[in-house]
Amino acid sequence: PRIGVCYFPEHWPRERWATDVEQMVEAGIDVVRMGEFSWARLEPERGAFDFEWLDTAVELLGEAGIDVVLCTPTATPPKWLVDDHPSILQEEPDGTPRAFGSRRHYCFNSAVYREETERVVREMADHYAENPHVVGWQTDNEYGCHDTVRCYCDDCASAFREWCRERYDGIDDLNETWGTTFWSQRYGSFEELDPPRHTAAEHHPSRLLDYGRFASDSVVAYNRLQTDLLRAADDDWFVTHNFMGTFSTLDSYDVGEPLEFGTWDSYPTGFAQDRRLGPTTPDRLRAGDPDQVSLNHDLYRGENGFWVMEQQPGDINWPPHSPQPGEGAMRLWAHQAVAHGANAVCYFRWRRCREGQEQYHAGLRRQDGSPDRGYHDARQAATDLADLDLGPVDAPVALLHRYDDCWALSEQPHSPEFDYWGLLGAFYRGLRGRGVQVDVVSPGDTLDDYAAVVAPSLHLADESLADRLGEYVEAGGHLFLGPRSGAKLPGNKLQPTLAPGPLTDLVGGQVDQHESPPETLTTRVTYCGESYDYTTWGEWLDAETATVVGRHDEGVGDGKPAVLEHSTGDGSVAYCGVWPGTDLADALAVALLERAGVAHSERFPETLRVAERDGYTWVLNFGSDPVTVETSGESTATWLVGSETVPPYGVSVAEETSAVDLSVTSE
Amino acid sequence: PRIGVCYFPEHWPRERWATDVEQMVEAGIDVVRMGEFSWARLEPERGAFDFEWLDTAVELLGEAGIDVVLCTPTATPPKWLVDDHPSILQEEPDGTPRAFGSRRHYCFNSAVYREETERVVREMADHYAENPHVVGWQTDNEYGCHDTVRCYCDDCASAFREWCRERYDGIDDLNETWGTTFWSQRYGSFEELDPPRHTAAEHHPSRLLDYGRFASDSVVAYNRLQTDLLRAADDDWFVTHNFMGTFSTLDSYDVGEPLEFGTWDSYPTGFAQDRRLGPTTPDRLRAGDPDQVSLNHDLYRGENGFWVMEQQPGDINWPPHSPQPGEGAMRLWAHQAVAHGANAVCYFRWRRCREGQEQYHAGLRRQDGSPDRGYHDARQAATDLADLDLGPVDAPVALLHRYDDCWALSEQPHSPEFDYWGLLGAFYRGLRGRGVQVDVVSPGDTLDDYAAVVAPSLHLADESLADRLGEYVEAGGHLFLGPRSGAKLPGNKLQPTLAPGPLTDLVGGQVDQHESPPETLTTRVTYCGESYDYTTWGEWLDAETATVVGRHDEGVGDGKPAVLEHSTGDGSVAYCGVWPGTDLADALAVALLERAGVAHSERFPETLRVAERDGYTWVLNFGSDPVTVETSGESTATWLVGSETVPPYGVSVAEETSAVDLSVTSE
Amino acid sequence: PRIGVCYFPEHWPRERWATDVEQMVEAGIDVVRMGEFSWARLEPERGAFDFEWLDTAVELLGEAGIDVVLCTPTATPPKWLVDDHPSILQEEPDGTPRAFGSRRHYCFNSAVYREETERVVREMADHYAENPHVVGWQTDNEYGCHDTVRCYCDDCASAFREWCRERYDGIDDLNETWGTTFWSQRYGSFEELDPPRHTAAEHHPSRLLDYGRFASDSVVAYNRLQTDLLRAADDDWFVTHNFMGTFSTLDSYDVGEPLEFGTWDSYPTGFAQDRRLGPTTPDRLRAGDPDQVSLNHDLYRGENGFWVMEQQPGDINWPPHSPQPGEGAMRLWAHQAVAHGANAVCYFRWRRCREGQEQYHAGLRRQDGSPDRGYHDARQAATDLADLDLGPVDAPVALLHRYDDCWALSEQPHSPEFDYWGLLGAFYRGLRGRGVQVDVVSPGDTLDDYAAVVAPSLHLADESLADRLGEYVEAGGHLFLGPRSGAKLPGNKLQPTLAPGPLTDLVGGQVDQHESPPETLTTRVTYCGESYDYTTWGEWLDAETATVVGRHDEGVGDGKPAVLEHSTGDGSVAYCGVWPGTDLADALAVALLERAGVAHSERFPETLRVAERDGYTWVLNFGSDPVTVETSGESTATWLVGSETVPPYGVSVAEETSAVDLSVTSE
Ligand SMILES: [Mg+2]
Ligand SMILES: [Mg+2]
Ligand SMILES: [Mg+2]
Ligand SMILES: [Zn+2]
Ligand SMILES: [Zn+2]
Ligand SMILES: [Zn+2]
Repeated sequence: PRIGVCYFPEHWPRERWATDVEQMVEAGIDVVRMGEFSWARLEPERGAFDFEWLDTAVELLGEAGIDVVLCTPTATPPKWLVDDHPSILQEEPDGTPRAFGSRRHYCFNSAVYREETERVVREMADHYAENPHVVGWQTDNEYGCHDTVRCYCDDCASAFREWCRERYDGIDDLNETWGTTFWSQRYGSFEELDPPRHTAAEHHPSRLLDYGRFASDSVVAYNRLQTDLLRAADDDWFVTHNFMGTFSTLDSYDVGEPLEFGTWDSYPTGFAQDRRLGPTTPDRLRAGDPDQVSLNHDLYRGENGFWVMEQQPGDINWPPHSPQPGEGAMRLWAHQAVAHGANAVCYFRWRRCREGQEQYHAGLRRQDGSPDRGYHDARQAATDLADLDLGPVDAPVALLHRYDDCWALSEQPHSPEFDYWGLLGAFYRGLRGRGVQVDVVSPGDTLDDYAAVVAPSLHLADESLADRLGEYVEAGGHLFLGPRSGAKLPGNKLQPTLAPGPLTDLVGGQVDQHESPPETLTTRVTYCGESYDYTTWGEWLDAETATVVGRHDEGVGDGKPAVLEHSTGDGSVAYCGVWPGTDLADALAVALLERAGVAHSERFPETLRVAERDGYTWVLNFGSDPVTVETSGESTATWLVGSETVPPYGVSVAEETSAVDLSVTSE
Repeated sequence: PRIGVCYFPEHWPRERWATDVEQMVEAGIDVVRMGEFSWARLEPERGAFDFEWLDTAVELLGEAGIDVVLCTPTATPPKWLVDDHPSILQEEPDGTPRAFGSRRHYCFNSAVYREETERVVREMADHYAENPHVVGWQTDNEYGCHDTVRCYCDDCASAFREWCRERYDGIDDLNETWGTTFWSQRYGSFEELDPPRHTAAEHHPSRLLDYGRFASDSVVAYNRLQTDLLRAADDDWFVTHNFMGTFSTLDSYDVGEPLEFGTWDSYPTGFAQDRRLGPTTPDRLRAGDPDQVSLNHDLYRGENGFWVMEQQPGDINWPPHSPQPGEGAMRLWAHQAVAHGANAVCYFRWRRCREGQEQYHAGLRRQDGSPDRGYHDARQAATDLADLDLGPVDAPVALLHRYDDCWALSEQPHSPEFDYWGLLGAFYRGLRGRGVQVDVVSPGDTLDDYAAVVAPSLHLADESLADRLGEYVEAGGHLFLGPRSGAKLPGNKLQPTLAPGPLTDLVGGQVDQHESPPETLTTRVTYCGESYDYTTWGEWLDAETATVVGRHDEGVGDGKPAVLEHSTGDGSVAYCGVWPGTDLADALAVALLERAGVAHSERFPETLRVAERDGYTWVLNFGSDPVTVETSGESTATWLVGSETVPPYGVSVAEETSAVDLSVTSE
Repeated sequence: PRIGVCYFPEHWPRERWATDVEQMVEAGIDVVRMGEFSWARLEPERGAFDFEWLDTAVELLGEAGIDVVLCTPTATPPKWLVDDHPSILQEEPDGTPRAFGSRRHYCFNSAVYREETERVVREMADHYAENPHVVGWQTDNEYGCHDTVRCYCDDCASAFREWCRERYDGIDDLNETWGTTFWSQRYGSFEELDPPRHTAAEHHPSRLLDYGRFASDSVVAYNRLQTDLLRAADDDWFVTHNFMGTFSTLDSYDVGEPLEFGTWDSYPTGFAQDRRLGPTTPDRLRAGDPDQVSLNHDLYRGENGFWVMEQQPGDINWPPHSPQPGEGAMRLWAHQAVAHGANAVCYFRWRRCREGQEQYHAGLRRQDGSPDRGYHDARQAATDLADLDLGPVDAPVALLHRYDDCWALSEQPHSPEFDYWGLLGAFYRGLRGRGVQVDVVSPGDTLDDYAAVVAPSLHLADESLADRLGEYVEAGGHLFLGPRSGAKLPGNKLQPTLAPGPLTDLVGGQVDQHESPPETLTTRVTYCGESYDYTTWGEWLDAETATVVGRHDEGVGDGKPAVLEHSTGDGSVAYCGVWPGTDLADALAVALLERAGVAHSERFPETLRVAERDGYTWVLNFGSDPVTVETSGESTATWLVGSETVPPYGVSVAEETSAVDLSVTSE
């Protein structure tokens, strides 16, 4: 695995560049990303391209043996371009333009902006085609950042009409699929369609879902424009994009389709402050929530692995608060990424920037050029990891994730506490607490190789999905379904039958009632003889062929079934109708793993995680106290990095043991 | 009393309709509301009316002995109409249109929309005139829902100018009534008037109050357009409108004037989450706050009683959280409504809708057509109530309510906690906790028949009001006034004298000072020897002819008078200068009832309420534990429904006793 | 010192005026402010000026021996003017106009409005030139109130381009100073500049800072237009403006430059609810936070002292809650103002206004004309103070304050809790708790006379500032610097070196790291052997020539230096890298005072403050319990007002002692 860094030579005097490169080499950095946001530097006036500075930087790096990844600079069209074509600006639902001054102000459906994009990307691609040091490209930057996937401008209105025209077999098909009889929302023609702009109350959920799909597809098409141009210029380099963490408005599978591999931008102590996967504890403020971070590693990991394109290097500028990470945390995160399949970890950024919006964002070097906390961590990580030659992660369990479900549930969460990623995280944490490796996959992917499949919420379902899952279970697979599964058709209408609709036979039961209780109501279930808290969402189930293994034991639904199990074919299906607390999620995970014959460990504390890749086992300590582990059974760990006692925010790496054989002896 | 349901046959296959009707009959339903929001189905293209489907549904219901109430579909103009006339859209104070996509997007002052309304209403009315099954009409739906009474468009600007021109005797009269010398707000002519659009700070309160009056009057005029057309077509049917609960921007007295009777839409567990009448306790999450609900029953009850046009049938979609109602709660609510004078309770809706914005709203049947929790409750309610032939409610006490006061206090609450309906509820709860029936009436109504009158805040007052109240008291009436009474002139200027202005002689004292303390300040009064908490609002009073019966006993105002009593004529007047906590509200109510010679019960717990109508007494349990009651004195209850032990969320109905003779023996 | 009042005769019948004047005289009032907001009364139609009413009022007052201060009425252009020229309206960042209906709706950069202003100010000035009773003028009213310093209209866009053109030596200079390479924000010409309107994410901090400077300068220029006209008409009267408390968007030094002295508007119980200087305790709800109020007295005090132009007279309308002030508080505030250098305290307003937005704002008289609580307090204050002939305040310590720092830190607080005025207040409270008088001065002022200088955050720094401070210390001064000092260049880019940048040599150390911890992280430092809490901001320091006197003793930074001291020249420099809690602020203040040889008292409770002016010593009790003080050492207090026991919300004034000799004997 490689350690890299994001570098902006244009922000520093040219005299400094050689020193920078020297210090990178000293740290073990062998890949550098450049060019992001540099449009105004590359083309200060229309047509007057200036590549000289970037050529020089590429050359300096290349000579030092460092590979270069370039970025297309399209996330920040320069002021002259915006002034030439103000129509490229995105618009809010109330019609306010998103003006020049930050970034991502362009509309993906602007024909004018697509032309400008073609112009600049072709120019750059042609210029660097055959350059021996440029090994790959990142398109644009963090599509959708600052809630910019969805735009409500007139260009988007036209494009949305076209998108619907192609998707539907005439306007009656759209009316039927959406269900527009409700509140007289019938459309007489595709010409009548508009973006869901500001209205008096909530919008039609099917219109919102399709607008969400359309908006994501608009990014996909825009990105494809770039990848096609880049490949046309040189088909040796790779093309990727840097996605964001637990991001809710863009289908990363679709965007990722033409990419060699995905990358993402990881900021653990920032994410921990969004409270989506749990409370912001002091430990998480110092090192992040390991499960929140690795859920993204596992999501963006594909056939060719993945990169962390931006790794948090120290304190950062954008969360509500900016605590200093724990001592060593920047190294810990690199190890965690690699353990979960990363082939490169690139810190963002080389040096704290003295100008603009990110002055409160650390780099590996401080603003005066001296080494920052992250520099030492990055160097140590490079030392630790440089010689490891690692194959892929092998996960026995799949977690199903689909953006359509995310969008449908985000538009109608039906509770202020219901967050799609939070629900995924709840079940994911149950598995990771038991040392199990997890692939995050789409339900369209092949599931045959997984002993167990956890689907926290396959909210939209049709017969073909039911068939695929049925075949999986029939062949011996063990399927676990979470609440709200199968409730809706793909068009975001309720199923004609009770939930889980087409999954009913598989589950062996149905949903009688649901509720979204506030925290002031006590909500508990008894599962396999133990009593557990749950929150946010509860269903009362009716078992048909399934066995009731959990029941509500509080309040109006007291005694109603809450968790079902159902042996079918050579496998089994479990359905859990509540949003589990951490203890219930653990118990559910253990039961599933045992049904599926998947080995698991003792339960690790929430700040300790163990990950495995290609015969290596990482013990990752996200807490402020040292932890000692021991190996159970016949395996005996050989420690390549560290030892059985892992310091605060520290990491140890072993061979000849496995995650599930480890347990904590002291804390 | 009748049990009814809201039905949308257009959402379901025609083959199903006969089954639906059969199941309605089985449940004891004998009235059905239809047609709401169906404009696009009735007129899919301009002029191409299609009544066939609705005719069929009416006929099916009629043949089964079920009466039909139709709705005008004007709450949801179709997309083709909006596209023909975008000018009909309402506008926000900042000018943003309220676009197509939800409902209520039309401006009440759009001449174009009034023409469209005339067209569609006349067409429907003519079509169903003489139809033997159509017994009445509901105009539109929930005027003002989603905060749409007030619009800020140019049509409203013109209409507001006209409204002011008619109300005032020249622009100088307006300037004087509003008081426009302040901050140079003088108008030179009516042409200079505008809606109170976005401005840097708060708006002039007199301008706001008149804009609120104008906006309400705009709805009144718009509704009158509809009622006139409906009556012109057939004067046998009744015409009503479905109002909303504790609604703050529409004068339901004015809108109700041309209606045979009022109806309203009751969602107890949703209302309980607005915290306006008190904290959202677990009991209220399961069954609502009985006083919050019945305050609305008593408000909308008129000479011809009232209907609940939409009764919550189970879980609902719009509050922050959606807990399942307690077992039996849907029956409890029907009984409560009938006890408070309802002549029909129509559940909303027949069947959970599979499409659009209300998929998370239960019906009496589930989405697959099977019976839902509410279906069983509705059927039991129909069985319980079908044979009761009930006359009107007879209430010894009136609660005064006036929208002008609501508007004036809502524009200048002078404390984040001061909510007009919350203040009404505080005093209302005191009365209801003692088993007393209450009429909610306007101060313009005749008060002669009431032994006592409670006016939580007659904030705006003039001499004629003072005269009316004086005559009432002179003749032996007992008047109770709450804080902020009489402080302002009808134009929303302060009185020239201290509060309560023209009511000063009646009260026998004045307001020296007022304050709105935050919760962090301890605020208590001693009233008749006991110490009580109060919150939100406190006044220091000066007694003149009145007796001081309550004094502040904390803080800066320690020892200042807080409650006055004053015998005058053959009656009495009490003035309470604080927003009472529940215990003080009870003590004040008891003292008033005793002065007025109105019988009252022991104090019931907040989850138990007793109501009386025409010789029948309902014991309504809104709590999660059973309650046993006994009859005191010589009366002995005969139980028509249930018994003296009322189960959780249950109800018993007795003859030969009265609310004030009952007391709780166990809880 | 004088006691005055703000009077609006135009709101009351002319017959009343003589009575009003009589009652003013009775209260000891000898100066009256009038004319504010009266444009529509003075010029009801364009060109039709009517001064007769104001002439009469001036004459009545003058004959009674009361001086008159007039206001230009430009804060409220009348409706006819707005309708003539809608372009004068300010605009929000999203383009929404700030419409007529409140006040301050005009744009400072509107050429049209400047013409209108000239017209009305010249007319008034000429009319009252040589009037013997008019002693001075207030320009406009509270520039910037309701967040109106910054406007985003097209007039402002043009003016901003001009402003930048004058400030910078060509567009490249601007690009370099701002640092526009970041995110391609380079400008090709001044024509490309715009106001920072709505954009997708945060704006460029240098652009924001310059827009803030430009907006403040726009007010300065607009105000200068008025002062020039007023002086041209008569150079005997004084010209002032009434500033607001701890106000963040306007440079009061710049606006104040052409004024004889500054005035400000003091509302202690309103300010206490903003929580910027600490929690809103019950005591502060009754009497305000003394340090929050006097920080403004000390800020606006200049060579010629200052006035409180509006003094809170009782309950007020604009904070979230409106508790009644403690008994006597209105007198206490007048004394406090005078103790801090006020030469006049004018209560706002004479009589509670019956119309418009401020009906919930008390006056000295109630709406019916009877005396209100404040009237008695004002009269007592006049009696107490009338005969005191007071020279200036003599303060041994300066607190440095600069608006550029306020703006830069407000745009990038980097923590929701970081408030510029809160930080100033924290250090100020430490000094005031020890009885020390403080001047709030700009770093450009001469510092030679101060034994110690506290600079809570000189965030922007260049070499010339470093030189000035170095000379001060060299000559024996004792300088104290707070966190974030010296971090940025004046253009709002980071320094090329670590913070404190050019102040590094002076400090003898640098900032290694910073963090902004949330309250859930425990943050403590050990300072001179004691352990203290801190919050909001923490730095890890590296000492070079300085001595480490405080260290973090918790969390990730445990053991890192947090406070440095450095003797240099004949003086010393201390640097504190954390936002101190009250105890640490006290300890830091004491250490500084001792180094500087400034006498100080025992620590007073937070509700007791002692202030000194020209040989008189005020003991001011902001608490609800009486406090007794005693004199230490040889001095023996002679009590001119009150005695050594100061009642709740009371005040005593002594001669022949000093603040630092007093201590509390009982509480
Ligand atoms: Mg994956
Ligand atoms: Mg009524
Ligand atoms: Mg000063
Ligand atoms: Zn767009
Ligand atoms: Zn309108
Ligand atoms: Zn402007």
